[in-house]
Amino acid sequence: MRLLLTNDDGIYAKGIEVLYEQLRRDHEVLVVAPETEQSAVGHAITLMDPLRVKPVNRNRAFFGYAVNGTPADCVKLAIKELMEERPDLVVSGINLGANVGINVIYSGTVSAATEGTVLGVPAIAISINSIRSPDFEPAAMFARSLARKVAANGLPLRTLLNVNVPAVPAGEIKGVRVTRQGVTRFVERFERRVDPRDSVYYWQCGSTPLLEEDGDTDGSALAAGYISITPIHYDLTNYAFLEPLREWVFPRVKSR
Amino acid sequence: MRLLLTNDDGIYAKGIEVLYEQLRRDHEVLVVAPETEQSAVGHAITLMDPLRVKPVNRNRAFFGYAVNGTPADCVKLAIKELMEERPDLVVSGINLGANVGINVIYSGTVSAATEGTVLGVPAIAISINSIRSPDFEPAAMFARSLARKVAANGLPLRTLLNVNVPAVPAGEIKGVRVTRQGVTRFVERFERRVDPRDSVYYWQCGSTPLLEEDGDTDGSALAAGYISITPIHYDLTNYAFLEPLREWVFPRVKSR
Repeated sequence: MRLLLTNDDGIYAKGIEVLYEQLRRDHEVLVVAPETEQSAVGHAITLMDPLRVKPVNRNRAFFGYAVNGTPADCVKLAIKELMEERPDLVVSGINLGANVGINVIYSGTVSAATEGTVLGVPAIAISINSIRSPDFEPAAMFARSLARKVAANGLPLRTLLNVNVPAVPAGEIKGVRVTRQGVTRFVERFERRVDPRDSVYYWQCGSTPLLEEDGDTDGSALAAGYISITPIHYDLTNYAFLEPLREWVFPRVKSR
Repeated sequence: MRLLLTNDDGIYAKGIEVLYEQLRRDHEVLVVAPETEQSAVGHAITLMDPLRVKPVNRNRAFFGYAVNGTPADCVKLAIKELMEERPDLVVSGINLGANVGINVIYSGTVSAATEGTVLGVPAIAISINSIRSPDFEPAAMFARSLARKVAANGLPLRTLLNVNVPAVPAGEIKGVRVTRQGVTRFVERFERRVDPRDSVYYWQCGSTPLLEEDGDTDGSALAAGYISITPIHYDLTNYAFLEPLREWVFPRVKSR
C-alpha cells in the first residue's frame, strides 16, 4: 500500500520514527508531519498564514516533509499537493499519551486521521498510554499488523480506528478490545501567576483521572491492560434527541 | 439566568455585540471571548503558552474580558477562574459564516459550546449564513428566544444546540427545522506561491459547496431558507461498526 504517515508531536518525535520503521517493511511510506509539537490543537486548520514545506532527513532513517501547520493541515497538503497519487491509508502517531474519552476531541493525532477520512482515505490513529519515553515498539508492531487488516477488510466510509496501547512490554499486553468512546476527560485547572512586569497570567494544566466506566469503553480497556480500538466517525448528531427537540415549539422570527 | 457569552470571531466582532444586546434584556451576561479572530481552530486548547485576560469595554455597550487564546480556552478560563458562580448557559456566536456538515469539526464557535457541555453547562452555538456584514438582528432575536426555551426545557447531558440562521430579513425566514449534521464540507485547494526570497509557500483556500443531501440535514435546511437546529454531542463512536470490528481477528503482540 501507499501510506501517508503523520502525527501531532512533530516530525522529530520518537514515536513517528519507530512507527515508520515498522510500516516501511510492508509499504511505501511518505512522512508529512508538523515541524513542531502540535498537541491539543484539535481539528484546527491554518487559513490565515502561509504553509511552508521543508524536506527532513532523520538519521538517514527516514525522509519526509515538515510543515509549519497542524496535523490536519499536513494531511490536506500531503494529499492535495505533495503526493502524486492518493494514499491508501493515513496513519497518525505514535502519540505520546493516550487519546481516550472526551480527550479525543482535543487530539491532533486523531484529527489527522479524521482529515484522512474526510478526504475519503481510511485512517488509523495510534497512541501510547505514557508521556515519559516509553518503548514504542509494541505499539508500532501492532499498528503494522492492523494496517494489514485494514487493507484486507476495509473500513466504513468516514470511519477511522482510534487505537490506544498500554505502555508495557509486549508480553504483558492482555489482548485487544473493541470499545466505545468513554467520558474520561482532561480535568483542567489554571495556575494564576504574576509576570516580572506585574501582570497576571494563567497556565492551563490538569490531569486525566479515569472516571468510573464499564469495561466497554476505551479508557477502561486501556487501564485494564488491553489495546483499545474504537471506531470513530464525525457525525456528531445526538440522534436520540432529534425527536424530543422536534416537540419544542419555536417562535417565529418577526420583522422589527 | 447567568449566561457566558463567547465566540470565535473575537471580542470586537459585530456578531457578539448584537447578540449581547438581545441576551442582556433577559439575563445577566458575562462576555469572555478571544482577543483576536480564531476561525477554524477546532477544539484547540492552549497548554504551552500563558493565557492573559484583558478587560474590554466596547462603546459603553458591553464590558467583558478578552483572552489571548482559543474559544475553548475562554470557556474553561471563564468557568474555572473568572466567574464567581457557574453559568446556567453558554452561548457562542454569532459566527460570521455557517457551521454545517463536516465543517462543524473545524468550528471554533461550536467548540466553545462543546466545552460548555464538557463542563456540564448547556450550550448553544449560533452562526449566520453569510461572511459579508449581514444583519445579525434576526439571528440574535432567535437566540434570545431559544435561550428561554433551553432554560424551560433543559438539554440532555453533553448535548448542545448548533443553530444556523439564513442571512435574510426576518420576514423571509421560512421557519425552523430540527436537523441532523450533514456531509457538506469545505473543499480546500492550495495556492502555491513564491515569496520575495524565492521560497515556496502555500495558501490554503477553498469553498463550501452544498452537497446533494436530503432535506433532513443542517446544510439543506439552511439552503432552503430555514433556521437549522442540530443537537450535537461528542460521542464519536461509530456504533454500527462496533460488532463488525469485533469479528476481526487481531494478532497478539509478541515480545521481541
